[in-house]
Amino acid sequence: MITRHDRVAVDLPKPKSPNPNGASLVQELLGGKFGEMSTLMNYTFQSMNFRGRDQDHARPFYDLIANIAAEEHNHIELVTYTINLLLSGASERGTDPTTAPLGVANESRNSLHFIASGQTALPVDSMGRPWTGDNVFSSGNLKLDLLHNFFLECGARANKIRVYETTDDPTVRAMAGYLLVRGGVHVVAYARALEVLTGADLSKLFPIPDISNKQFPEAKVLEDQGLHLILYRNNPKDFARVGEVWKGRHPEDGQKLTVEDGGPEGVPTPELPEEPQLTAPGIGAIDEEMLKELAKRLGS
Amino acid sequence: MITRHDRVAVDLPKPKSPNPNGASLVQELLGGKFGEMSTLMNYTFQSMNFRGRDQDHARPFYDLIANIAAEEHNHIELVTYTINLLLSGASERGTDPTTAPLGVANESRNSLHFIASGQTALPVDSMGRPWTGDNVFSSGNLKLDLLHNFFLECGARANKIRVYETTDDPTVRAMAGYLLVRGGVHVVAYARALEVLTGADLSKLFPIPDISNKQFPEAKVLEDQGLHLILYRNNPKDFARVGEVWKGRHPEDGQKLTVEDGGPEGVPTPELPEEPQLTAPGIGAIDEEMLKELAKRLGS
Amino acid sequence: MITRHDRVAVDLPKPKSPNPNGASLVQELLGGKFGEMSTLMNYTFQSMNFRGRDQDHARPFYDLIANIAAEEHNHIELVTYTINLLLSGASERGTDPTTAPLGVANESRNSLHFIASGQTALPVDSMGRPWTGDNVFSSGNLKLDLLHNFFLECGARANKIRVYETTDDPTVRAMAGYLLVRGGVHVVAYARALEVLTGADLSKLFPIPDISNKQFPEAKVLEDQGLHLILYRNNPKDFARVGEVWKGRHPEDGQKLTVEDGGPEGVPTPELPEEPQLTAPGIGAIDEEMLKELAKRLGS
Amino acid sequence: MITRHDRVAVDLPKPKSPNPNGASLVQELLGGKFGEMSTLMNYTFQSMNFRGRDQDHARPFYDLIANIAAEEHNHIELVTYTINLLLSGASERGTDPTTAPLGVANESRNSLHFIASGQTALPVDSMGRPWTGDNVFSSGNLKLDLLHNFFLECGARANKIRVYETTDDPTVRAMAGYLLVRGGVHVVAYARALEVLTGADLSKLFPIPDISNKQFPEAKVLEDQGLHLILYRNNPKDFARVGEVWKGRHPEDGQKLTVEDGGPEGVPTPELPEEPQLTAPGIGAIDEEMLKELAKRLGS
Amino acid sequence: MITRHDRVAVDLPKPKSPNPNGASLVQELLGGKFGEMSTLMNYTFQSMNFRGRDQDHARPFYDLIANIAAEEHNHIELVTYTINLLLSGASERGTDPTTAPLGVANESRNSLHFIASGQTALPVDSMGRPWTGDNVFSSGNLKLDLLHNFFLECGARANKIRVYETTDDPTVRAMAGYLLVRGGVHVVAYARALEVLTGADLSKLFPIPDISNKQFPEAKVLEDQGLHLILYRNNPKDFARVGEVWKGRHPEDGQKLTVEDGGPEGVPTPELPEEPQLTAPGIGAIDEEMLKELAKRLGS
Amino acid sequence: MITRHDRVAVDLPKPKSPNPNGASLVQELLGGKFGEMSTLMNYTFQSMNFRGRDQDHARPFYDLIANIAAEEHNHIELVTYTINLLLSGASERGTDPTTAPLGVANESRNSLHFIASGQTALPVDSMGRPWTGDNVFSSGNLKLDLLHNFFLECGARANKIRVYETTDDPTVRAMAGYLLVRGGVHVVAYARALEVLTGADLSKLFPIPDISNKQFPEAKVLEDQGLHLILYRNNPKDFARVGEVWKGRHPEDGQKLTVEDGGPEGVPTPELPEEPQLTAPGIGAIDEEMLKELAKRLGS
Repeated sequence: MITRHDRVAVDLPKPKSPNPNGASLVQELLGGKFGEMSTLMNYTFQSMNFRGRDQDHARPFYDLIANIAAEEHNHIELVTYTINLLLSGASERGTDPTTAPLGVANESRNSLHFIASGQTALPVDSMGRPWTGDNVFSSGNLKLDLLHNFFLECGARANKIRVYETTDDPTVRAMAGYLLVRGGVHVVAYARALEVLTGADLSKLFPIPDISNKQFPEAKVLEDQGLHLILYRNNPKDFARVGEVWKGRHPEDGQKLTVEDGGPEGVPTPELPEEPQLTAPGIGAIDEEMLKELAKRLGS
Repeated sequence: MITRHDRVAVDLPKPKSPNPNGASLVQELLGGKFGEMSTLMNYTFQSMNFRGRDQDHARPFYDLIANIAAEEHNHIELVTYTINLLLSGASERGTDPTTAPLGVANESRNSLHFIASGQTALPVDSMGRPWTGDNVFSSGNLKLDLLHNFFLECGARANKIRVYETTDDPTVRAMAGYLLVRGGVHVVAYARALEVLTGADLSKLFPIPDISNKQFPEAKVLEDQGLHLILYRNNPKDFARVGEVWKGRHPEDGQKLTVEDGGPEGVPTPELPEEPQLTAPGIGAIDEEMLKELAKRLGS
Repeated sequence: MITRHDRVAVDLPKPKSPNPNGASLVQELLGGKFGEMSTLMNYTFQSMNFRGRDQDHARPFYDLIANIAAEEHNHIELVTYTINLLLSGASERGTDPTTAPLGVANESRNSLHFIASGQTALPVDSMGRPWTGDNVFSSGNLKLDLLHNFFLECGARANKIRVYETTDDPTVRAMAGYLLVRGGVHVVAYARALEVLTGADLSKLFPIPDISNKQFPEAKVLEDQGLHLILYRNNPKDFARVGEVWKGRHPEDGQKLTVEDGGPEGVPTPELPEEPQLTAPGIGAIDEEMLKELAKRLGS
Repeated sequence: MITRHDRVAVDLPKPKSPNPNGASLVQELLGGKFGEMSTLMNYTFQSMNFRGRDQDHARPFYDLIANIAAEEHNHIELVTYTINLLLSGASERGTDPTTAPLGVANESRNSLHFIASGQTALPVDSMGRPWTGDNVFSSGNLKLDLLHNFFLECGARANKIRVYETTDDPTVRAMAGYLLVRGGVHVVAYARALEVLTGADLSKLFPIPDISNKQFPEAKVLEDQGLHLILYRNNPKDFARVGEVWKGRHPEDGQKLTVEDGGPEGVPTPELPEEPQLTAPGIGAIDEEMLKELAKRLGS
Repeated sequence: MITRHDRVAVDLPKPKSPNPNGASLVQELLGGKFGEMSTLMNYTFQSMNFRGRDQDHARPFYDLIANIAAEEHNHIELVTYTINLLLSGASERGTDPTTAPLGVANESRNSLHFIASGQTALPVDSMGRPWTGDNVFSSGNLKLDLLHNFFLECGARANKIRVYETTDDPTVRAMAGYLLVRGGVHVVAYARALEVLTGADLSKLFPIPDISNKQFPEAKVLEDQGLHLILYRNNPKDFARVGEVWKGRHPEDGQKLTVEDGGPEGVPTPELPEEPQLTAPGIGAIDEEMLKELAKRLGS
Repeated sequence: MITRHDRVAVDLPKPKSPNPNGASLVQELLGGKFGEMSTLMNYTFQSMNFRGRDQDHARPFYDLIANIAAEEHNHIELVTYTINLLLSGASERGTDPTTAPLGVANESRNSLHFIASGQTALPVDSMGRPWTGDNVFSSGNLKLDLLHNFFLECGARANKIRVYETTDDPTVRAMAGYLLVRGGVHVVAYARALEVLTGADLSKLFPIPDISNKQFPEAKVLEDQGLHLILYRNNPKDFARVGEVWKGRHPEDGQKLTVEDGGPEGVPTPELPEEPQLTAPGIGAIDEEMLKELAKRLGS
């Protein structure tokens, strides 16, 4: 079970300008094979499917996967809001359909943003193809699942780096910087889990791909604050043993890894203005009289 | 953001016996077009994408959708654990691969349960086809999204009824009974939302399909306790206005609808024994010496 | 534009017994790559997309493709009704959901027949996979499109033969026999079109695959009546020149090909009884009082 | 069974200029989830699958769905011809392949128009993804199917509005205006059907989304002629009782609904010139001598 | 470029009996996400896409990937022939279609084996779903691609183990045993490549999953002969430096790794008898006279 | 079994300039329905699945299909390298991620080239959709399979012509010219096979589509050298009888067809420079010290 909060993990700056094609590329980090839908759903299913978790040796690994799953929910939010901010104001606002207000769709890579959604995110990749359950790997074998997760996070890291490199938009960069750091925690976490499970030392593999988070200013500033060292524990009672895996030192800078109870403090969700040409949400399209009646019906 | 708890919403009885084909059918309620992955992801995206939510008239609808989204997480858990319980012990347990322990796969509808997963759930439907992001509808127009959700919940209700009708297994029936009641709340919630938004009276449409929850003993017992009247509010501060939509009387039995803060109390997650023939999780496959070393590496 | 008639092309006998797995196999002839959805949609799109049809040399080919397209609508009907008849009574009829009336789904190849539909056909193949627009070929080059169609009809013929060979059910055999004959007309028609267009003589290729329609009693009886020699022309005014392609002699038995205006006379559509356990259609689930009110509302 | 006519429902003006990206967007109305392929196939399957249609209470609903299915064929034609007109002349005409005549494909959203088809429509959406049978809903439960259809038509309406808003091209607008009106009839029809079936009054839900057809000049002119009030009955004998559902007054302007036998009068299908650079149709590529021989082979 | 030889890598025993459902499961090793189509295509694309291969440090890795790619062709052959042998004689042989010779399809998991193919393999998985290019990972980053390949081979190993466990059929077991050994070489090869590239020591990760090849008699006998120690080099001139990666000792048994020029000696391809009821290949369906003419046309 | 050589069939000139959208279009010839992945996999599967090949009458057809399959490997290489050359240098080279080096992705049709791959080919079509096993046809009936292959090659020919027409880039044209000639051999080969098998004369069908290879300068120069007359035989011992089908005269220019043992001589594979902004391959990203260590670990 989960409890939902009306906040997002980090403050996103406003975009320099609306940017539909930029939004189309960011979709890769949401609905692509290595997007946040994939990390969320892989770990959610692996945790629900975890056999033998009642065993003393297995429980810390269960706790780790379950907690990382929970944090991925924050991440689909951040990518989604980035897309939504890039698309806000991307077409001509107004209520007259005869002015071709959605003309921008003709030059846009993802027409679904204008036809299927109200200039907002969809669970699709940068080519507009839907996320699919085929992206979930849950073999039941712990070592193999951890290896998968380590690879998945490295692949996700490559995608974040590459999407970052497509733009100088501050919203995208802030989001990607944050996710590089927090996704970086997950890379390390699964490497640590494999190390604890088998005794192998994977630290010389880092970083994958061969470029440090420190080269991304928006990530570096967060790592300077130590954000790459913290694993969030949703609840110290439910997931008591996560620290038996998340411990020791960071493979890249040697700092000490720590467990922090609760999640990030977060900030309110970003404001998303109406898009009347898309009747999104459409309440503003109603006349005065009807609005009064609606208010009356709402009034509790 | 979310907080995850290591509990599930309701206690699931043990299956009468392992039942791989039963599990294959229950997958429809997880990864099918009308499965819980769909309800979870539709409302999650609609809430993140909700434009104009800062407006006074719009906020209660946002609160409603966001809260229902959160509850759907409980539901993917319940369906997943039902599948996992049906698959526990479905093949021959043991560590010798030469005894054809997975022979049952030859007569099973979903071979992925034995090859791709460790006899556990996957985000696929009853034909083994993956859930897809194409199942998410998020037009941005509130009225249209609510109509979609009302239809989606009615479609989901039909599927639950039909899967219930395939079996007398107590686990499946307990799960389906609970979901009929709680999904029934969501049917009513979206109907109420449309009524509040437009002034139309949809109560004569109920029930869709034309069979009452009361005809399902496992649902009836819960409705007798009033579980069909409660909308869970994750947090009274974050989602203060959900009660401006969820109010009035139930369209079928006329009882008063109420908002309850927090979610169901829940119970611990079900136990899932190891399946050594699938090396799931595989820790038991390790010899004594290695287990000792693992314990040492875990010891914090 | 089309006019629809409430008739089907040929009378289908009742099945010996309900047969869900048989129905699952027949789906290949409806929604498979070589199913009737494919022939219908290929020729419908090719005709709408036919460039240069105003030219004197091109028009007869347009007329041919457009008319065959129309007949394929009859064929999706026949395959659909065959599936529906095989599924009628396939589960336990009744209104009590607690008797596991849909238990048969556990042993059935296509669970969607019981969960997604009311024991009726869906546009899917014998593995339950949906028909897709990728099955439509419409290159715009007449010779290439005709070659495609010739191949498509030969592939469809192979599928009909093989589905026929899976069963001794009289409904399936009557349907397959009729379609072998009428699809056989389309094989010949596209071969004739290629011959007229290029001057090549394709008659030695027949039959593909290497087995004659005469070996199928249900087809032979129709060919003895000359049904394999007739091309239906929807309307002599709209499609005046179809006979400039459909002429000469049948490549297998040398009989004279003829054009017939209008389509087959047809028979009323088969009766499909209610399936109350699926609330299909559900009107019977309504009580006496409501039925009276419904009758009142219907009364015009 | 159907009879096909070589006409389309309404006259389409010529485009201002060839417009490949415009064509790519219009594809959404053909092969998208809410495109005309979906409405055509949903109602065609629901009608063929309609159980219990022989019952007195059920027949009018069957008649309604079957007749709307037939009209959707007109609609796939209109969208297809709109795409074909937008693509006519979109590349450089000629027979010399070395001049890069298809260079425009490099800047076009849908390359399949130039590679897979002869600058004509395909059953794909605005992202080039194929239409799929997964878009067909046919549960067998009449109330649920009608609710689906009502939602489907509202979703289709949203898509038409949005595609209209992408352009000032007269062909697209004429097509969209006509479909808004006729699709609007289907929205009302399914609402009426639900009202007659259950007694609920859905009229306050209109319009969905929150913008009137009257705001679209190309639709308004047709509604001024009353085109939004007419349901076409293919045949008064086969579908005698459609008027028991289609009756009463239009929910938006209160005018009287009427049944009209036959369909629209229609006009000849639009002319589609050859595209020799694509050898579409390719007959013009043949030399004089061969054309003479072709004429001889055609001569009946 | 490749040269093809009419041989397969290892001799496959005849199946105990035809086994369509067994064949359906073995398909996972051919067209599944972790099947041989995936390994073949991943390495083929990675080798063709390998940037900077002219660099001294990079070339040995290119040589490794290119050579493993080539061996995967042997593996799709072995899996395909296993399927084909299991399906030989699976239906009733004969030329009379009225005896329902393909009745077995009604109880078979994969109907495509009887309808789409002539009782032979298709590039699909154990659920009949087609292999897809989405299974190819080719990021261009060497470390990430190697990590992917290491994971892919471990996942493939898990699938081979599990398919082995479904049956005691000697053909399946011989094939799986051979592939466990040769796929095991590839697991080690990619681990070695990562070790050489980064200096990390991955040997403690072995085996993944946690069961040794030695527990499979058909694999053990081959490892006893040292087959798990050999990497095949297609050509010592073209791929001179493969031995700079493939060297050292096997992580599980410590024996010395060696490079062998050329591939396995192989044996002739298995015999696949005709299936006349499927007209496969259909030449036998031709009468004596036609066979004579065919012989004449063939005679060179 | 195959032997791989580190060469490609023909020398490809350097592109005039990097051209991402050009690369996106060429993908159709690799991963499209009619791309080289399709020809390779169709013939590979048909040859492995060929029943009754031990029969005297059947063997020459097996030899033909198996040999053409082998040549298709050359063709996927040529298309892949064309794409890779077009993408080399397509973004800004460098190691600083903050300069938005991948900005070009915003205007590119296929973003996967920049995010999923290191500016290299993927098994996808011109819309970025993955190649799928559904593209493989292997019915087992020889005549039908040959007809399919003849159609497939004609469709592939149309695609090559159309992609050629999109550009004046010399790399694309050289590749397309070569493939028109060699694919043309395969068109003729399957026509010849049908002719030998049935006695029909298909020569009047040529060319499909209606434009001669001679109109493409890059193809004409190769046909002037007789490259369209040669069928490559991988090995005279393994495939001795291919000349019983490949014989006689070319249907278009009447020259004599000949069998040549071995394949084309070929040339070294094209050079693909590093793309450091994509860390492809990433070895250059390593510092001096690490490179020295790597050299040491490589040194055999």
